[in-house]
Amino acid sequence: MALLTELTESLGIRHPIVLAPMGGSAGGALAAAVSRAGGLGMLGGGYGERAWLERELALVAEGTDEPWGVGFLSWAIDAEAVEQALEFNPAAVMLSFGDPGPFVERIRRSDAVLIVQVTDLEEARRAVDVGADVIVAQGTESGGHGARHGRSTLPFVPLVVDLAAPVPVLAAGGIADGRGVAAALALGAAGALIGTRFQATAEALVDPSVRQAIVEGRGQDTERSAVLDVARGARWPTHKYTARTLGHPYLDRWRGREAELAGDAQARQDYQDDVARGAITSLPVWAGEAVDLITDLPSAADLVTTLAVQAEEALARAGRHRPNDRRGEGS
Amino acid sequence: MALLTELTESLGIRHPIVLAPMGGSAGGALAAAVSRAGGLGMLGGGYGERAWLERELALVAEGTDEPWGVGFLSWAIDAEAVEQALEFNPAAVMLSFGDPGPFVERIRRSDAVLIVQVTDLEEARRAVDVGADVIVAQGTESGGHGARHGRSTLPFVPLVVDLAAPVPVLAAGGIADGRGVAAALALGAAGALIGTRFQATAEALVDPSVRQAIVEGRGQDTERSAVLDVARGARWPTHKYTARTLGHPYLDRWRGREAELAGDAQARQDYQDDVARGAITSLPVWAGEAVDLITDLPSAADLVTTLAVQAEEALARAGRHRPNDRRGEGS
Repeated sequence: MALLTELTESLGIRHPIVLAPMGGSAGGALAAAVSRAGGLGMLGGGYGERAWLERELALVAEGTDEPWGVGFLSWAIDAEAVEQALEFNPAAVMLSFGDPGPFVERIRRSDAVLIVQVTDLEEARRAVDVGADVIVAQGTESGGHGARHGRSTLPFVPLVVDLAAPVPVLAAGGIADGRGVAAALALGAAGALIGTRFQATAEALVDPSVRQAIVEGRGQDTERSAVLDVARGARWPTHKYTARTLGHPYLDRWRGREAELAGDAQARQDYQDDVARGAITSLPVWAGEAVDLITDLPSAADLVTTLAVQAEEALARAGRHRPNDRRGEGS
Repeated sequence: MALLTELTESLGIRHPIVLAPMGGSAGGALAAAVSRAGGLGMLGGGYGERAWLERELALVAEGTDEPWGVGFLSWAIDAEAVEQALEFNPAAVMLSFGDPGPFVERIRRSDAVLIVQVTDLEEARRAVDVGADVIVAQGTESGGHGARHGRSTLPFVPLVVDLAAPVPVLAAGGIADGRGVAAALALGAAGALIGTRFQATAEALVDPSVRQAIVEGRGQDTERSAVLDVARGARWPTHKYTARTLGHPYLDRWRGREAELAGDAQARQDYQDDVARGAITSLPVWAGEAVDLITDLPSAADLVTTLAVQAEEALARAGRHRPNDRRGEGS
């Protein structure tokens, strides 16, 4: 029994499960593994760095004959990054955070499906207007970057589904097991976009310490902030976007004082010095609020299969309790 | 085809839909209407005010032969309020916000099911330890009061389900239509506790202007804060709890300056004066983040039926897309 949605149909994939194109860590090996397992692997093209793209695009294209895609940060890239990606014939190109406008026409002239990620209703309307084939509704539970003033996934997804219909919508943020995938489908989404859970797989391009931190992390210890982007001198437009991370000494030191930090060159130098002497890692551990549900380090292929099976079971069980059964033994 | 869960089985109700015991506004008429329609109507006992309880308990007991319940604020009540409620033979007593401990033994000696609402994992463990029969996992999307440092419903519910098993869990926060109920069940919950959606019904004990504000309200305009509790001189322990409301002039005036407001007797007098001269209402409009999904003013009975039918349809449709069908026309 497979889960069939507008997404699995239109892309010809087996499971309505999409790898979030996490900049840098969703590399070619991870994306290819997700696609081979029947999900949609998405390369994390991020800022559109040429050398990284060249290497990872080749890896994913060689790594699978199944559909795969690539995601970019709209505010950060130029047209050449999109051009470079399209040369590898991705099945989908996803644009997140910022105006997708400048890149839409070129993507729509290709064979790739255009996926646009949105964080509020205004962005959702804009995504429909520019002709997105698929819209990702991202909630504030997400790990990594998202809207500073965002919406929670559970109430946000059905709103976007209603606004965008008949354009299919994916749910993102707070989903780390098959029950979350099932909930996304129940809300009317055509699938789930999943990030943090895939960081804790063998194929993710992350340091082993990051995988371990995710396995040990608790959602109550995650926090949305722009402090770490400011401290590390990232180019993110921090008035619009923050990032959810696990705890970090610079968060404790600068929480609530972003403007002050931005004006403090010495503090930013301290950050670089702390990185140089190994006191902190150069990047924070981006993690979503569902990180508690992540307790193992499977292969990406096993994870995709597990998510799909769990989601099917969760839907089969929902509202089908049999009297005198104990929870979970009913099906 | 009905939705059967541990909740519908153990309480003998038709739908896994529970009226949130909203203090003051979930009165006897609303609770009775929800129970007659097959949900579980819960009286909003709040602070345990005797005269209100006497009147509304009589109304609900006379208004339905189906199971109904009553909810209290643990931090605010004394044992006599529980005693008064139990004289009316409720099928359930719910305790929220604060230590349920002092009231547990008396409730467990009655025939009432003990429901304990929790906002984090520590409270969930405590609820299991005291022997709760049902646990409500409340997310920050909720309208009205909730944890200052809370969890989002989508990632929180499955965590509590795992922690509490085999004790059944209800999902609360961000649920205002049948898709939300379906998502709750997919996450492993035995039902959904719904507040804001029931404020916009004929039977809610609210001013018509409140109903209208909810119908017109947008989730992006709701905000969690303790400012209004401080301004109006409420006894809520604001270091632990905030409330989600629609926009309010005192929010704009005092956002981020709670401590200052607490020390400013004149500002609190201004609030009372503004109420007295009709510039503001005495209570804010409590509303959850799913308020966008509320666009009509049905009877409570029609609402319960609609929620149940929508939830069944949402589960039947999830992952069952038929090729070449348009969204929603597949079933």
